[in-house]
Amino acid sequence: MSGLAIGIDLGGTELRAALIGPDGTLRARRQTATDAKGGPQAVIAQMLALIAGLGTDGVQGIGIAAPGPLDPIAGICIAPPTLEGWRDVPLAALLAERTGLPTRLENDANAAALGEHRAGAGRGLAHLVYVTISTGIGGGVIEQHRLLHGRRGMAAEIGHMTLVADGPPCVCGGRGCWEALASGPALAQAAAQAIAGGAPTALRLPVTARDVAEAARSGDALALDLLRREARWLGLGFANLLHLYSPEAIIAGGGLSAALAMMLPEILATLHSAAMPAYHGAQVLPAALGPDAGLVGAACLILDHQDTP
Amino acid sequence: MSGLAIGIDLGGTELRAALIGPDGTLRARRQTATDAKGGPQAVIAQMLALIAGLGTDGVQGIGIAAPGPLDPIAGICIAPPTLEGWRDVPLAALLAERTGLPTRLENDANAAALGEHRAGAGRGLAHLVYVTISTGIGGGVIEQHRLLHGRRGMAAEIGHMTLVADGPPCVCGGRGCWEALASGPALAQAAAQAIAGGAPTALRLPVTARDVAEAARSGDALALDLLRREARWLGLGFANLLHLYSPEAIIAGGGLSAALAMMLPEILATLHSAAMPAYHGAQVLPAALGPDAGLVGAACLILDHQDTP
Repeated sequence: MSGLAIGIDLGGTELRAALIGPDGTLRARRQTATDAKGGPQAVIAQMLALIAGLGTDGVQGIGIAAPGPLDPIAGICIAPPTLEGWRDVPLAALLAERTGLPTRLENDANAAALGEHRAGAGRGLAHLVYVTISTGIGGGVIEQHRLLHGRRGMAAEIGHMTLVADGPPCVCGGRGCWEALASGPALAQAAAQAIAGGAPTALRLPVTARDVAEAARSGDALALDLLRREARWLGLGFANLLHLYSPEAIIAGGGLSAALAMMLPEILATLHSAAMPAYHGAQVLPAALGPDAGLVGAACLILDHQDTP
Repeated sequence: MSGLAIGIDLGGTELRAALIGPDGTLRARRQTATDAKGGPQAVIAQMLALIAGLGTDGVQGIGIAAPGPLDPIAGICIAPPTLEGWRDVPLAALLAERTGLPTRLENDANAAALGEHRAGAGRGLAHLVYVTISTGIGGGVIEQHRLLHGRRGMAAEIGHMTLVADGPPCVCGGRGCWEALASGPALAQAAAQAIAGGAPTALRLPVTARDVAEAARSGDALALDLLRREARWLGLGFANLLHLYSPEAIIAGGGLSAALAMMLPEILATLHSAAMPAYHGAQVLPAALGPDAGLVGAACLILDHQDTP
């Protein structure tokens, strides 16, 4: 099925749109700062302007990647925390009405999984798990070339699986979630505690996960130690993902994945000790599309005729 | 699609076969003690005798539920631990050759999930997770009315997700797996430790999970306490399953599920504290088909034309 689609990635900071070819390549792109305080009508007007700039000749439809929670079946943004005044906004229907084009909505991590599957590190794989490790940990699962959705499209909330019963509190209200142990802020917090505790290091407060990765690259002993700890949490979480979804590959994206190569030996060692041997053949790969994964994946909602869940 | 199928449930102790109607009901059944020491040829001869007893008029094919590890794509039993001399046996092909009927193979927990979906507690649900809590913890996931398979059909090895990093050792070689915390033997071991430690109770050594459930029914304080602990582990594992697969229902089978009603309040309390509110609408239900779930599900491999993974 050839044809073009427009992919839109609605973030709290940036609003991006691109014309995507049937092979998942970007033909043209537009972006602007999201009017996050302007409410849905202002942002929809921004989307229409970007779409007009791209043109709609040969375009089969529009796919939108947006922050959750959202309902991909009904095409409704439920309550995106980074967008003011968005509450149960039927975004897909509103945009379809204004453009006359079929419009589909998907959460951003699922869209990124689709993008990496179509045109990134997961090309050709029937089964993969995409993991984004950043301020939070999110993900999307491809099973037999399709998104795993579950009830209300809420499957693959992988950051909130418990890895340590009664562990540290998580933003979700639970305890010991993978996100609470291995997200960027969790790494930064571990670094801050070590620095405050007087560990010898070139790191200074305030400290971010990116600072830790950079110091590790320069050979800072504390930073290397912190990255080993991070790698163990990632390896343990990845082992769970293998047992639960049996992907051919785990594809790691998000800010912290920039340090993936440094962490990979420890990640794989943990994975191989925690996962049963039959799962050791699965790969751990860096994401290939960077911030474009969601944009490409959004277009795939149209190009691949992915079923509504 | 109407028609009949034969379901076979190959266990280490019992070999059972049934003629199953298009609605998933059992029309006739046969069973025998598995010749577990006789090797594959002896057991295949037993299967042929059971099939002959049932008759094959109007039968579209044969589905077999067997213990893992197995390859449902190739129809091969890889190394079932309860069957002597079984190593890479192409069971589906061998039975198809001898009967002239299409034959499909699936692991027993996945088959039970299919059975409960077709004719049991999960009838009509697009998304469900079947959990069997017994000597081990296993399961199967239905997504959009189909089995979740993953690479080599190995998805949904739910008993081996880590719930307690560096927790108690598990038979799989890992640590802190759900199975190591919440299986029947884990409950029995906790009971044995408490009895040996002198806790006041009517329970005596040696003790089984079933003993604990029975003592709890009689109001034994230690047994009630142990079941509350068991319920918390189950609730925590169920919360993970909700976040990961977003089923409409978790369906609990296996020996320990006989005590599900007693444990349900504590299971739900744990679930609601560990799972995000959007997931609270999912139900926890007792399995309806008991030991027939695998038999019915095996037939569904034929009746539902479930894709090979």
